[in-house]
Amino acid sequence: MNEVMFTTNNLWILIATVLVFVMHLGFSMLEAGFVRRKNTVNILFKNAMIIAIGLLTYFIIGFNLMYPDTPLFYGLFGFDGIGLNQPEGDAGLIGWADGAYTYYTDFIFQAMFAATCATIVSGAVAERIKLMPFLGFTVLFVAVSYPITGMWKWGGGWLADLGFHDFAGSTLVHAVGGFAALAAIMLLGPRLGKYTKNGIRPIPGHNMPLAAMGVFMLWFGWFGFNGGSVLSADPGAVALVFVTTSLAAAAGAVGSFFMSYALFKNHDLSMVLNGILGGLVAITAGADLMSPMASILVGAIAGCIIPVSVVAFDRIKLDDPVGATSVHLVCGIFGTLAVGIFSSIASPHQLLIQLTGVLAIGGFTFAFAYSVMYLLKATVGIRVSEEEETRGLDVSEHEMEAYQEFEGAKYELAVH
Amino acid sequence: MNEVMFTTNNLWILIATVLVFVMHLGFSMLEAGFVRRKNTVNILFKNAMIIAIGLLTYFIIGFNLMYPDTPLFYGLFGFDGIGLNQPEGDAGLIGWADGAYTYYTDFIFQAMFAATCATIVSGAVAERIKLMPFLGFTVLFVAVSYPITGMWKWGGGWLADLGFHDFAGSTLVHAVGGFAALAAIMLLGPRLGKYTKNGIRPIPGHNMPLAAMGVFMLWFGWFGFNGGSVLSADPGAVALVFVTTSLAAAAGAVGSFFMSYALFKNHDLSMVLNGILGGLVAITAGADLMSPMASILVGAIAGCIIPVSVVAFDRIKLDDPVGATSVHLVCGIFGTLAVGIFSSIASPHQLLIQLTGVLAIGGFTFAFAYSVMYLLKATVGIRVSEEEETRGLDVSEHEMEAYQEFEGAKYELAVH
Amino acid sequence: MNEVMFTTNNLWILIATVLVFVMHLGFSMLEAGFVRRKNTVNILFKNAMIIAIGLLTYFIIGFNLMYPDTPLFYGLFGFDGIGLNQPEGDAGLIGWADGAYTYYTDFIFQAMFAATCATIVSGAVAERIKLMPFLGFTVLFVAVSYPITGMWKWGGGWLADLGFHDFAGSTLVHAVGGFAALAAIMLLGPRLGKYTKNGIRPIPGHNMPLAAMGVFMLWFGWFGFNGGSVLSADPGAVALVFVTTSLAAAAGAVGSFFMSYALFKNHDLSMVLNGILGGLVAITAGADLMSPMASILVGAIAGCIIPVSVVAFDRIKLDDPVGATSVHLVCGIFGTLAVGIFSSIASPHQLLIQLTGVLAIGGFTFAFAYSVMYLLKATVGIRVSEEEETRGLDVSEHEMEAYQEFEGAKYELAVH
Repeated sequence: MNEVMFTTNNLWILIATVLVFVMHLGFSMLEAGFVRRKNTVNILFKNAMIIAIGLLTYFIIGFNLMYPDTPLFYGLFGFDGIGLNQPEGDAGLIGWADGAYTYYTDFIFQAMFAATCATIVSGAVAERIKLMPFLGFTVLFVAVSYPITGMWKWGGGWLADLGFHDFAGSTLVHAVGGFAALAAIMLLGPRLGKYTKNGIRPIPGHNMPLAAMGVFMLWFGWFGFNGGSVLSADPGAVALVFVTTSLAAAAGAVGSFFMSYALFKNHDLSMVLNGILGGLVAITAGADLMSPMASILVGAIAGCIIPVSVVAFDRIKLDDPVGATSVHLVCGIFGTLAVGIFSSIASPHQLLIQLTGVLAIGGFTFAFAYSVMYLLKATVGIRVSEEEETRGLDVSEHEMEAYQEFEGAKYELAVH
Repeated sequence: MNEVMFTTNNLWILIATVLVFVMHLGFSMLEAGFVRRKNTVNILFKNAMIIAIGLLTYFIIGFNLMYPDTPLFYGLFGFDGIGLNQPEGDAGLIGWADGAYTYYTDFIFQAMFAATCATIVSGAVAERIKLMPFLGFTVLFVAVSYPITGMWKWGGGWLADLGFHDFAGSTLVHAVGGFAALAAIMLLGPRLGKYTKNGIRPIPGHNMPLAAMGVFMLWFGWFGFNGGSVLSADPGAVALVFVTTSLAAAAGAVGSFFMSYALFKNHDLSMVLNGILGGLVAITAGADLMSPMASILVGAIAGCIIPVSVVAFDRIKLDDPVGATSVHLVCGIFGTLAVGIFSSIASPHQLLIQLTGVLAIGGFTFAFAYSVMYLLKATVGIRVSEEEETRGLDVSEHEMEAYQEFEGAKYELAVH
Repeated sequence: MNEVMFTTNNLWILIATVLVFVMHLGFSMLEAGFVRRKNTVNILFKNAMIIAIGLLTYFIIGFNLMYPDTPLFYGLFGFDGIGLNQPEGDAGLIGWADGAYTYYTDFIFQAMFAATCATIVSGAVAERIKLMPFLGFTVLFVAVSYPITGMWKWGGGWLADLGFHDFAGSTLVHAVGGFAALAAIMLLGPRLGKYTKNGIRPIPGHNMPLAAMGVFMLWFGWFGFNGGSVLSADPGAVALVFVTTSLAAAAGAVGSFFMSYALFKNHDLSMVLNGILGGLVAITAGADLMSPMASILVGAIAGCIIPVSVVAFDRIKLDDPVGATSVHLVCGIFGTLAVGIFSSIASPHQLLIQLTGVLAIGGFTFAFAYSVMYLLKATVGIRVSEEEETRGLDVSEHEMEAYQEFEGAKYELAVH
């Protein structure tokens, strides 16, 4: 590869890194908008810490767990040591490897991905989890669990050998976050007053502009998430991924629009927003192998799934304030299987491989997350007290409020 | 063209696509901020659906209406069939064409543009239009009207032959949206209580940080809107466009600042924000052919136009909650004519051609939008009832509220 | 350099320009979130004008003050005349110079930097400064002071000759803004009721989601601020800068998290947010010369500095509503000195040079800002009246409010 092509390819992966970073902003705003006002500071605090923890733990061990030189134990595990391996070559900075980008580019692009799966969990457990145990869980989940299952496919492990296809992570990122979220909300229980003897009480989010902004920003970032996963600036491949990603998101909105209307006879903004996300999550596994028409189909089905899934989780009393399990777990699984059904490599055999990958990764992740959360629950506890939950986590965990309506009369007395 | 240059050019158009996408986020926030609190969910819902409708209809027929292989009827109309024409070549993905980017890149970049003109309408008709008729209008407008007039110039039609210059769409995108907005608000009438027998009642927007955020995001996206319209990464051309676009936006702010103060003796944030947008709209037609000094002049004039135009529309009782007609229609027309006055191809002859383009495109668009809206008005109706308007569209169309102030005491009773 | 490499390099600087532009959005949201509700329109207005003033004054004289062909008086001053010097070459647009980008690219990238330092001041003086004197100060500060000290290093002046290293401007941009902010708040005095005889009264910001959004957007933009300062798309150099920048920001969050807890036993969101910014400011001087591990150290120290510094400024009764002096001045100075301690060129001699640069630039900037503010204070006055401050600047300076809670009953009587 010549030097200029290398520079252009590397530049695209770096720009894609920036776009994936924006997804953390998107998740923060989406989750803040969908929780109640009294838990807003808490969710922002967690998201700010998650990206910090994600980057640092990926530096310390995650990257070397996910991309070991030699996967061991039949491709189940590998580890190259603490920290980054100082690359050889031009000014000590470039490991041309056989890739289209430098070693540091590889690290930072992958590090941005790592933190996203913890963010998915933070939305599902919002409004009732204790801050410190959640951050502890995040450290272990991002540092250990995510890289190990990631290695199985992207690090050249056993699922890569098997022919499992998950282009940018419908399963490896989104369903992984979703499986952990599922484990967590099973152990955590629903918010107070969510499921009453009179039925399911809707608890609307406190700020719809924030939620809408978050979804647009996630879509924005997804151009880097999927587009960067081409791992080069190859014109045909990146352009196709942009087209399939965009059309699936659009079809997700339309699918959710019609399904919501069919089921509830209303035009629920949160359903359309989650429909967009469902379409994006679903296309992520096969964005490189779908025709534009197939991507519309995948997105539309994901959009139709969203309202059904949201209702279904409520029926079985698994409380997820932002719909993260419906979006990331259910649509993530669907999208991974869709590679075996709608993509250019679709076949019954491929579908079986896709299913194998989902089950293996899901099984490991669920077991890991459930075990860690269980231990935390049994020791330090994972849930705030009823009083704290009622007052809101902003006051009880942070002694702050997200908004100040008035000049501050209440602070007249609070001098210290 | 060598492969690396092709890759770099294509990459820039894809990144510009991402930036144009951000404009939809910008429009959503701007419009949400400028409407009343009670209509916030509605405007967010419409904007989420507009981008979805825009991408899908452009996929189905828009792209083939706008860029037909052979324009017919003296360059007035052409159509290459439903869906995308699967491109030949490398992996079936690339149609190198004679351009600097792939067929799919071309599609997705242009598709992002298509939806913007419908967003412009959504701001002007906010707070009183019925949801479903508006979405129906959007489908027809984006799928049929916008591509036809777009073809006249960008698809190699009769205005291209005539020498009409509209670099990135002061007329083809912005004034087109503005003409449709004008037709719509003429048929729709003003918001209840806007024009009283005692005079014009100001109805301030409910959230200025959202509006300001929207304007900054639109400026941000405009680097892709104008910069991508170079259709390559040509260093000199893209750099010039960045400079003229930025300086015009800055001059628009300053022009509006002084004109607002001269007229009203105040420092109105909404005027400065719309001044920035006016400058951006105005430079769009000639961003490639203006000197930096000329771009400052164009922006400053557009900025001065804004307060005058906003007042003028109110005087003739055309109610536009966000000032979309002033920004996109008036400054769009001015910017298109400015190419004949201030650009490197300025001449009385060119000015006449520019005027011809504005009149032809404006006439077609206004007639199309007026006809569709008129038919909708005569059949299903386009305006919500007085009671619904008073309660707000969020509750009457969506059964939601944009913000929840309290924990949810009111929901205690709403179990189901 | 071949044409394609030139195109790729130039493209990156243009994209970095777009990212630096986003920082203005970030500052606007951060500052709006951290002030009280009654001063929100004012801070948004100022930030919209600052970017406009910054771009226009940099066009008129700033660029030619900062990058003169020949620095005079031993590298202390130079000026190449009003406006841009129309570049020679291809289509009159490109000045290939000996650089990797065009003349216009150089201008617009640098112009985006120029306005940031004024934005830093606007946060510190928020909630009590008069609008017009502040805008007047901004014109002089951005047009004259910033370019002169910028020239000393980046324009080839005496600090460049001395071997001073400030990669992307920990001192040249951030501490410069911070020194001016310090001068301004010394002359301006604290907000009413901030320091009472009973102690320091906390005045919490009115909107934490806006503040968090602002910080994420600043981080987002910093990829362009630091990454673009490589001044080419060199794969190794840009990738390293992305890694060091990200890790320092992450470590800043963690450092501030622990230090806040150690000092106050709480989890204060504003401290973590400012910790991220502190890490970003501190790494900026040496982002190109730090190892990943060193960047974590620099970021963590900066994060630890933040809570200490915020308390210290309050102790000496220098009131800074957004913590701009702690973030930009203190961490800017620390980051500049850190080049002499932790970077690949660290040495006692280098540390002395770094200190010389900070003192010289700081001394000039403080003297300039203090003099201008002093003159403004002595003539037109720089502070609003007590009554205006109590009512809030939104009403007293702009006759607007940032938010409308209700439909507008109060406006029923306000017809004109």
